[in-house]
Amino acid sequence: MRENEIMKDKTASVYLAHPYMQSLNHAIYYRVLETLNRGKVETFSHDLYNEGFNPLLTVGELGFDESKDPLVLQYAEELLESDLLIFIHPNWWGQPPAILKGWIDRVIRPPYAYDYPPELSPGDPPVQKLSDKVGMVFNTSNTPGPRENSYFGDPLENTWKQCIFGFCGIQMSYRTMFRTVAGSSQEIREGWLDEVEAAVAGEINKMP
Amino acid sequence: MRENEIMKDKTASVYLAHPYMQSLNHAIYYRVLETLNRGKVETFSHDLYNEGFNPLLTVGELGFDESKDPLVLQYAEELLESDLLIFIHPNWWGQPPAILKGWIDRVIRPPYAYDYPPELSPGDPPVQKLSDKVGMVFNTSNTPGPRENSYFGDPLENTWKQCIFGFCGIQMSYRTMFRTVAGSSQEIREGWLDEVEAAVAGEINKMP
Repeated sequence: MRENEIMKDKTASVYLAHPYMQSLNHAIYYRVLETLNRGKVETFSHDLYNEGFNPLLTVGELGFDESKDPLVLQYAEELLESDLLIFIHPNWWGQPPAILKGWIDRVIRPPYAYDYPPELSPGDPPVQKLSDKVGMVFNTSNTPGPRENSYFGDPLENTWKQCIFGFCGIQMSYRTMFRTVAGSSQEIREGWLDEVEAAVAGEINKMP
Repeated sequence: MRENEIMKDKTASVYLAHPYMQSLNHAIYYRVLETLNRGKVETFSHDLYNEGFNPLLTVGELGFDESKDPLVLQYAEELLESDLLIFIHPNWWGQPPAILKGWIDRVIRPPYAYDYPPELSPGDPPVQKLSDKVGMVFNTSNTPGPRENSYFGDPLENTWKQCIFGFCGIQMSYRTMFRTVAGSSQEIREGWLDEVEAAVAGEINKMP
Protein backbone atom coordinates (compact mmCIF):
# COMPACT_ATOMS: atom_id res chain seq x y z
CA MET A 1 0.00 0.00 0.00
CA ARG A 2 1.39 3.39 -0.94
CA GLU A 3 1.72 5.91 1.80
CA ASN A 4 -0.81 8.31 0.30
CA GLU A 5 -3.45 5.63 0.42
CA ILE A 6 -3.30 5.45 4.19
CA MET A 7 -6.43 7.46 4.93
CA LYS A 8 -6.57 9.17 8.27
CA ASP A 9 -9.91 8.76 9.94
CA LYS A 10 -9.97 12.37 11.10
CA THR A 11 -12.35 15.25 10.52
CA ALA A 12 -12.04 19.03 10.76
CA SER A 13 -14.47 21.95 10.65
CA VAL A 14 -13.17 25.25 9.30
CA TYR A 15 -15.02 28.54 9.72
CA LEU A 16 -14.23 31.82 7.98
CA ALA A 17 -15.81 35.17 8.89
CA HIS A 18 -14.84 37.97 6.52
CA PRO A 19 -16.93 39.81 3.92
CA TYR A 20 -14.21 40.47 1.32
CA MET A 21 -13.41 37.56 -1.00
CA GLN A 22 -9.88 38.88 -1.68
CA SER A 23 -9.03 39.31 2.00
CA LEU A 24 -6.01 37.86 3.77
CA ASN A 25 -8.54 35.92 5.85
CA HIS A 26 -9.70 34.19 2.67
CA ALA A 27 -6.11 33.38 1.71
CA ILE A 28 -5.61 31.85 5.18
CA TYR A 29 -8.83 29.87 4.76
CA TYR A 30 -7.75 28.37 1.43
CA ARG A 31 -4.29 27.55 2.78
CA VAL A 32 -5.90 25.77 5.73
CA LEU A 33 -8.18 23.79 3.43
CA GLU A 34 -5.28 22.87 1.16
CA THR A 35 -3.19 21.68 4.11
CA LEU A 36 -6.04 19.61 5.53
CA ASN A 37 -6.69 18.07 2.13
CA ARG A 38 -3.03 17.20 1.68
CA GLY A 39 -3.08 15.67 5.17
CA LYS A 40 -6.14 13.59 4.20
CA VAL A 41 -8.34 15.11 6.85
CA GLU A 42 -12.01 15.07 5.97
CA THR A 43 -13.14 18.68 6.16
CA PHE A 44 -16.35 20.65 6.58
CA SER A 45 -15.54 24.16 5.30
CA HIS A 46 -17.77 27.17 5.82
CA ASP A 47 -17.38 30.70 4.52
CA LEU A 48 -20.12 32.14 6.74
CA TYR A 49 -20.71 35.31 4.68
CA ASN A 50 -20.86 33.33 1.47
CA GLU A 51 -23.32 30.84 2.95
CA GLY A 52 -25.64 33.65 4.07
CA PHE A 53 -25.63 32.46 7.66
CA ASN A 54 -28.16 34.32 9.83
CA PRO A 55 -26.40 35.19 13.10
CA LEU A 56 -29.52 36.13 15.08
CA LEU A 57 -30.38 33.71 17.86
CA THR A 58 -34.13 33.26 17.94
CA VAL A 59 -36.58 33.22 20.85
CA GLY A 60 -36.94 29.46 20.30
CA GLU A 61 -33.20 29.02 20.74
CA LEU A 62 -33.07 30.87 24.08
CA GLY A 63 -33.71 27.74 26.12
CA PHE A 64 -32.85 24.13 25.45
CA ASP A 65 -35.04 23.43 22.43
CA GLU A 66 -33.45 22.35 19.18
CA SER A 67 -33.00 25.05 16.54
CA LYS A 68 -35.42 25.04 13.60
CA ASP A 69 -32.76 26.41 11.23
CA PRO A 70 -31.39 23.49 9.14
CA LEU A 71 -28.05 25.27 8.72
CA VAL A 72 -27.65 25.58 12.51
CA LEU A 73 -28.47 21.89 12.93
CA GLN A 74 -25.98 20.95 10.23
CA TYR A 75 -23.24 23.03 11.87
CA ALA A 76 -24.00 21.45 15.26
CA GLU A 77 -23.83 17.91 13.86
CA GLU A 78 -20.57 18.65 12.06
CA LEU A 79 -19.18 20.09 15.28
CA LEU A 80 -19.77 16.76 17.01
CA GLU A 81 -18.18 14.82 14.15
CA SER A 82 -15.05 16.98 14.04
CA ASP A 83 -11.77 16.33 15.83
CA LEU A 84 -10.26 19.68 14.89
CA LEU A 85 -12.05 23.04 14.86
CA ILE A 86 -10.42 25.95 13.04
CA PHE A 87 -11.67 29.54 13.14
CA ILE A 88 -10.35 32.33 10.90
CA HIS A 89 -11.45 35.90 11.49
CA PRO A 90 -10.27 39.51 11.82
CA ASN A 91 -10.00 41.25 15.17
CA TRP A 92 -12.95 43.66 15.22
CA TRP A 93 -13.25 45.40 18.58
CA GLY A 94 -11.32 42.61 20.28
CA GLN A 95 -14.01 40.19 19.13
CA PRO A 96 -15.07 38.16 16.12
CA PRO A 97 -17.27 39.79 13.47
CA ALA A 98 -21.00 39.63 14.25
CA ILE A 99 -21.57 36.75 11.82
CA LEU A 100 -19.20 34.50 13.80
CA LYS A 101 -20.49 35.81 17.15
CA GLY A 102 -23.91 34.66 15.95
CA TRP A 103 -22.50 31.26 14.99
CA ILE A 104 -21.26 30.95 18.59
CA ASP A 105 -24.60 32.18 20.01
CA ARG A 106 -26.63 29.72 17.89
CA VAL A 107 -24.46 26.63 17.41
CA ILE A 108 -22.59 26.28 20.71
CA ARG A 109 -25.74 25.25 22.57
CA PRO A 110 -27.19 22.37 24.52
CA PRO A 111 -27.35 19.48 24.03
CA TYR A 112 -24.53 19.49 21.46
CA ALA A 113 -21.70 21.56 22.88
CA TYR A 114 -22.59 21.43 26.56
CA ASP A 115 -25.52 20.38 28.72
CA TYR A 116 -27.21 20.85 32.06
CA PRO A 117 -28.49 17.45 33.15
CA PRO A 118 -31.11 17.50 35.93
CA GLU A 119 -28.63 16.41 38.62
CA LEU A 120 -26.73 19.73 38.40
CA SER A 121 -27.51 22.49 40.89
CA PRO A 122 -28.36 26.02 39.72
CA GLY A 123 -25.16 27.92 38.99
CA ASP A 124 -23.08 24.77 38.42
CA PRO A 125 -20.87 24.80 35.32
CA PRO A 126 -22.34 22.67 32.54
CA VAL A 127 -21.24 19.22 31.45
CA GLN A 128 -18.71 19.73 28.66
CA LYS A 129 -19.54 17.82 25.49
CA LEU A 130 -16.60 18.75 23.25
CA SER A 131 -13.67 17.65 25.38
CA ASP A 132 -12.35 15.29 22.69
CA LYS A 133 -11.72 18.20 20.34
CA VAL A 134 -8.85 20.54 19.58
CA GLY A 135 -9.29 24.16 18.51
CA MET A 136 -7.13 26.52 16.44
CA VAL A 137 -7.68 30.23 15.81
CA PHE A 138 -6.12 32.45 13.14
CA ASN A 139 -6.70 36.18 13.61
CA THR A 140 -5.72 39.24 11.60
CA SER A 141 -5.44 42.73 13.01
CA ASN A 142 -4.48 46.31 12.25
CA THR A 143 -3.66 47.10 15.87
CA PRO A 144 0.07 47.07 16.71
CA GLY A 145 1.04 44.40 19.24
CA PRO A 146 2.06 46.70 22.12
CA ARG A 147 -1.25 48.59 22.02
CA GLU A 148 -3.22 45.35 21.65
CA ASN A 149 -1.57 43.80 24.67
CA SER A 150 -1.21 46.78 27.00
CA TYR A 151 -4.35 48.78 26.25
CA PHE A 152 -6.91 46.25 24.98
CA GLY A 153 -5.45 43.21 26.79
CA ASP A 154 -5.81 40.90 23.74
CA PRO A 155 -9.42 40.02 24.57
CA LEU A 156 -9.62 37.39 21.83
CA GLU A 157 -7.26 35.13 23.76
CA ASN A 158 -9.61 34.99 26.74
CA THR A 159 -12.71 34.82 24.55
CA TRP A 160 -11.55 31.75 22.66
CA LYS A 161 -9.49 29.98 25.31
CA GLN A 162 -11.67 30.43 28.38
CA CYS A 163 -15.11 31.65 27.37
CA ILE A 164 -15.76 29.44 24.34
CA PHE A 165 -13.31 26.53 24.09
CA GLY A 166 -12.84 26.20 27.86
CA PHE A 167 -16.58 26.29 28.50
CA CYS A 168 -17.16 23.24 26.27
CA GLY A 169 -13.92 21.38 27.04
CA ILE A 170 -12.16 22.11 23.74
CA GLN A 171 -8.38 22.29 24.10
CA MET A 172 -6.97 25.38 22.34
CA SER A 173 -3.79 24.09 20.74
CA TYR A 174 -2.92 27.18 18.70
CA ARG A 175 -3.85 30.82 18.28
CA THR A 176 -2.02 33.55 16.44
CA MET A 177 -2.71 37.12 15.35
CA PHE A 178 -1.14 38.31 12.09
CA ARG A 179 -0.52 42.06 12.23
CA THR A 180 -0.56 44.68 11.12
CA VAL A 181 -2.30 43.66 7.92
CA ALA A 182 -2.76 47.17 6.51
CA GLY A 183 0.43 48.06 4.69
CA SER A 184 1.93 44.55 4.93
CA SER A 185 3.99 43.46 1.91
CA GLN A 186 3.26 40.50 -0.32
CA GLU A 187 6.38 38.85 1.12
CA ILE A 188 5.19 39.24 4.70
CA ARG A 189 1.78 37.82 3.80
CA GLU A 190 3.38 34.84 2.10
CA GLY A 191 5.33 34.23 5.30
CA TRP A 192 2.10 34.33 7.31
CA LEU A 193 0.50 31.79 4.99
CA ASP A 194 3.50 29.53 5.45
CA GLU A 195 3.03 29.84 9.21
CA VAL A 196 -0.60 28.81 8.78
CA GLU A 197 0.40 25.76 6.79
CA ALA A 198 3.06 24.75 9.31
CA ALA A 199 0.65 25.12 12.22
CA VAL A 200 -2.09 23.06 10.60
CA ALA A 201 0.34 20.42 9.34
CA GLY A 202 1.82 20.18 12.84
CA GLU A 203 -1.63 19.65 14.29
CA ILE A 204 -2.42 16.94 11.75
CA ASN A 205 0.81 15.16 12.67
CA LYS A 206 -0.17 15.20 16.33
CA MET A 207 -3.48 13.50 15.59
CA PRO A 208 -3.57 9.97 16.99
CA MET B 1 -42.20 79.29 35.20
CA ARG B 2 -43.00 75.97 36.78
CA GLU B 3 -40.09 73.59 37.31
CA ASN B 4 -41.42 70.92 34.96
CA GLU B 5 -41.42 73.43 32.14
CA ILE B 6 -37.64 73.81 32.34
CA MET B 7 -36.74 71.56 29.42
CA LYS B 8 -33.30 70.03 29.50
CA ASP B 9 -31.53 70.31 26.20
CA LYS B 10 -30.12 66.79 26.47
CA THR B 11 -30.37 63.73 24.26
CA ALA B 12 -29.91 59.99 24.84
CA SER B 13 -29.68 56.92 22.61
CA VAL B 14 -30.88 53.63 24.07
CA TYR B 15 -30.11 50.27 22.48
CA LEU B 16 -31.67 46.93 23.41
CA ALA B 17 -30.44 43.55 22.13
CA HIS B 18 -32.67 40.65 23.17
CA PRO B 19 -35.02 38.51 21.08
CA TYR B 20 -37.72 37.83 23.69
CA MET B 21 -40.27 40.63 24.16
CA GLN B 22 -41.08 39.50 27.74
CA SER B 23 -37.44 39.40 28.82
CA LEU B 24 -35.95 41.18 31.81
CA ASN B 25 -33.86 43.08 29.26
CA HIS B 26 -37.07 44.50 27.80
CA ALA B 27 -38.29 45.48 31.27
CA ILE B 28 -34.98 47.29 31.86
CA TYR B 29 -35.34 49.01 28.47
CA TYR B 30 -38.80 50.33 29.26
CA ARG B 31 -37.74 51.48 32.72
CA VAL B 32 -34.81 53.35 31.16
CA LEU B 33 -37.11 55.01 28.62
CA GLU B 34 -39.62 55.96 31.32
CA THR B 35 -36.87 57.49 33.48
CA LEU B 36 -35.42 59.46 30.57
CA ASN B 37 -38.88 60.71 29.64
CA ARG B 38 -39.61 61.79 33.19
CA GLY B 39 -36.23 63.57 33.23
CA LYS B 40 -37.15 65.36 29.99
CA VAL B 41 -34.27 63.88 28.03
CA GLU B 42 -34.95 63.61 24.33
CA THR B 43 -34.44 59.94 23.46
CA PHE B 44 -33.70 57.80 20.43
CA SER B 45 -34.77 54.28 21.42
CA HIS B 46 -33.93 51.16 19.44
CA ASP B 47 -34.99 47.58 20.02
CA LEU B 48 -32.54 46.12 17.50
CA TYR B 49 -34.31 42.78 17.05
CA ASN B 50 -37.66 44.51 16.58
CA GLU B 51 -36.22 46.92 14.01
CA GLY B 52 -34.77 44.05 11.98
CA PHE B 53 -31.26 45.49 12.10
CA ASN B 54 -28.83 43.63 9.83
CA PRO B 55 -25.61 43.12 11.82
CA LEU B 56 -23.40 42.11 8.89
CA LEU B 57 -20.73 44.66 8.01
CA THR B 58 -20.47 44.87 4.24
CA VAL B 59 -17.43 44.95 1.96
CA GLY B 60 -18.20 48.62 1.29
CA GLU B 61 -18.02 49.35 5.02
CA LEU B 62 -14.58 47.74 5.46
CA GLY B 63 -12.72 50.96 4.71
CA PHE B 64 -13.69 54.56 5.28
CA ASP B 65 -16.62 54.90 2.88
CA GLU B 66 -20.02 55.85 4.21
CA SER B 67 -22.49 53.01 4.68
CA LYS B 68 -25.26 52.65 2.12
CA ASP B 69 -27.70 51.30 4.74
CA PRO B 70 -30.07 54.14 5.79
CA LEU B 71 -30.57 52.56 9.23
CA VAL B 72 -26.80 52.56 9.84
CA LEU B 73 -26.57 56.20 8.79
CA GLN B 74 -29.47 57.11 11.04
CA TYR B 75 -27.86 55.35 14.03
CA ALA B 76 -24.55 57.12 13.34
CA GLU B 77 -26.21 60.54 13.18
CA GLU B 78 -28.13 59.91 16.37
CA LEU B 79 -24.92 58.81 18.05
CA LEU B 80 -23.37 62.20 17.30
CA GLU B 81 -26.46 64.02 18.60
CA SER B 82 -26.59 62.07 21.88
CA ASP B 83 -25.05 63.08 25.19
CA LEU B 84 -25.87 59.79 26.89
CA LEU B 85 -25.55 56.31 25.33
CA ILE B 86 -27.26 53.40 27.07
CA PHE B 87 -26.85 49.74 26.10
CA ILE B 88 -28.97 46.90 27.49
CA HIS B 89 -28.07 43.31 26.68
CA PRO B 90 -27.56 39.83 28.11
CA ASN B 91 -24.12 38.34 28.71
CA TRP B 92 -23.74 35.77 25.94
CA TRP B 93 -20.24 34.24 25.94
CA GLY B 94 -18.88 37.27 27.77
CA GLN B 95 -20.00 39.41 24.84
CA PRO B 96 -23.08 41.14 23.48
CA PRO B 97 -25.48 39.18 21.27
CA ALA B 98 -24.49 39.15 17.58
CA ILE B 99 -27.07 41.82 16.67
CA LEU B 100 -25.40 44.35 18.98
CA LYS B 101 -21.91 43.20 17.98
CA GLY B 102 -22.96 44.04 14.43
CA TRP B 103 -24.24 47.44 15.51
CA ILE B 104 -20.76 48.09 16.93
CA ASP B 105 -19.06 46.75 13.78
CA ARG B 106 -21.20 48.88 11.45
CA VAL B 107 -22.02 52.08 13.36
CA ILE B 108 -18.88 52.79 15.39
CA ARG B 109 -16.91 53.75 12.29
CA PRO B 110 -15.07 56.64 10.75
CA PRO B 111 -15.74 59.48 10.34
CA TYR B 112 -18.46 59.49 13.01
CA ALA B 113 -17.08 57.71 16.06
CA TYR B 114 -13.35 58.04 15.36
CA ASP B 115 -11.12 59.05 12.49
CA TYR B 116 -7.65 58.68 11.03
CA PRO B 117 -6.72 62.08 9.58
CA PRO B 118 -3.79 62.07 7.13
CA GLU B 119 -1.32 63.49 9.68
CA LEU B 120 -1.44 60.29 11.78
CA SER B 121 1.28 57.69 11.35
CA PRO B 122 0.42 54.03 10.68
CA GLY B 123 -0.40 52.30 13.97
CA ASP B 124 -1.30 55.54 15.77
CA PRO B 125 -4.52 55.44 17.80
CA PRO B 126 -7.34 57.25 16.02
CA VAL B 127 -8.74 60.69 16.81
CA GLN B 128 -11.63 60.14 19.22
CA LYS B 129 -14.87 61.77 18.09
CA LEU B 130 -17.21 60.88 20.95
CA SER B 131 -15.35 62.33 23.93
CA ASP B 132 -18.26 64.56 24.92
CA LYS B 133 -20.46 61.54 25.62
CA VAL B 134 -21.22 59.35 28.61
CA GLY B 135 -22.01 55.64 28.37
CA MET B 136 -24.04 53.30 30.58
CA VAL B 137 -24.38 49.52 30.26
CA PHE B 138 -26.99 47.23 31.84
CA ASN B 139 -26.24 43.51 31.55
CA THR B 140 -28.07 40.39 32.62
CA SER B 141 -26.46 37.03 33.24
CA ASN B 142 -27.04 33.48 34.40
CA THR B 143 -23.42 33.02 35.48
CA PRO B 144 -22.81 33.35 39.22
CA GLY B 145 -20.54 36.27 40.14
CA PRO B 146 -17.57 34.27 41.49
CA ARG B 147 -17.34 32.14 38.32
CA GLU B 148 -17.82 35.21 36.10
CA ASN B 149 -15.02 37.09 37.81
CA SER B 150 -12.51 34.33 38.53
CA TYR B 151 -12.92 32.05 35.50
CA PHE B 152 -14.20 34.30 32.69
CA GLY B 153 -12.70 37.56 34.03
CA ASP B 154 -15.87 39.61 33.34
CA PRO B 155 -14.88 40.29 29.71
CA LEU B 156 -17.79 42.69 29.17
CA GLU B 157 -16.15 45.24 31.47
CA ASN B 158 -13.05 45.44 29.28
CA THR B 159 -15.05 45.24 26.06
CA TRP B 160 -17.22 48.23 26.88
CA LYS B 161 -14.83 50.33 28.96
CA GLN B 162 -11.61 49.95 26.99
CA CYS B 163 -12.33 48.45 23.60
CA ILE B 164 -15.46 50.38 22.62
CA PHE B 165 -16.04 53.41 24.84
CA GLY B 166 -12.36 54.06 25.49
CA PHE B 167 -11.48 53.75 21.80
CA CYS B 168 -13.86 56.59 20.89
CA GLY B 169 -13.43 58.71 24.02
CA ILE B 170 -16.76 57.88 25.65
CA GLN B 171 -16.61 57.96 29.44
CA MET B 172 -18.25 54.86 30.97
CA SER B 173 -20.12 56.24 33.96
CA TYR B 174 -21.99 53.09 34.95
CA ARG B 175 -22.11 49.38 34.26
CA THR B 176 -23.87 46.65 36.17
CA MET B 177 -24.67 42.97 35.68
CA PHE B 178 -27.94 41.66 37.15
CA ARG B 179 -27.59 37.98 38.05
CA THR B 180 -28.49 35.29 38.12
CA VAL B 181 -31.64 35.95 36.13
CA ALA B 182 -32.80 32.32 35.86
CA GLY B 183 -34.74 31.53 39.02
CA SER B 184 -34.84 35.12 40.26
CA SER B 185 -38.04 36.15 42.07
CA GLN B 186 -40.41 38.89 41.02
CA GLU B 187 -39.28 40.84 44.07
CA ILE B 188 -35.62 40.63 43.12
CA ARG B 189 -36.41 41.75 39.58
CA GLU B 190 -38.39 44.71 40.86
CA GLY B 191 -35.35 45.66 42.93
CA TRP B 192 -33.15 45.50 39.83
CA LEU B 193 -35.53 47.75 37.91
CA ASP B 194 -35.42 50.25 40.78
CA GLU B 195 -31.62 50.17 40.54
CA VAL B 196 -31.89 50.90 36.81
CA GLU B 197 -34.15 53.86 37.50
CA ALA B 198 -31.86 55.24 40.20
CA ALA B 199 -28.79 54.91 37.99
CA VAL B 200 -30.38 56.67 35.02
CA ALA B 201 -31.97 59.38 37.19
CA GLY B 202 -28.59 59.94 38.84
CA GLU B 203 -26.97 60.36 35.44
CA ILE B 204 -29.64 62.82 34.33
CA ASN B 205 -29.03 64.89 37.48
CA LYS B 206 -25.32 65.01 36.72
CA MET B 207 -25.95 66.46 33.25
CA PRO B 208 -24.83 70.07 33.01
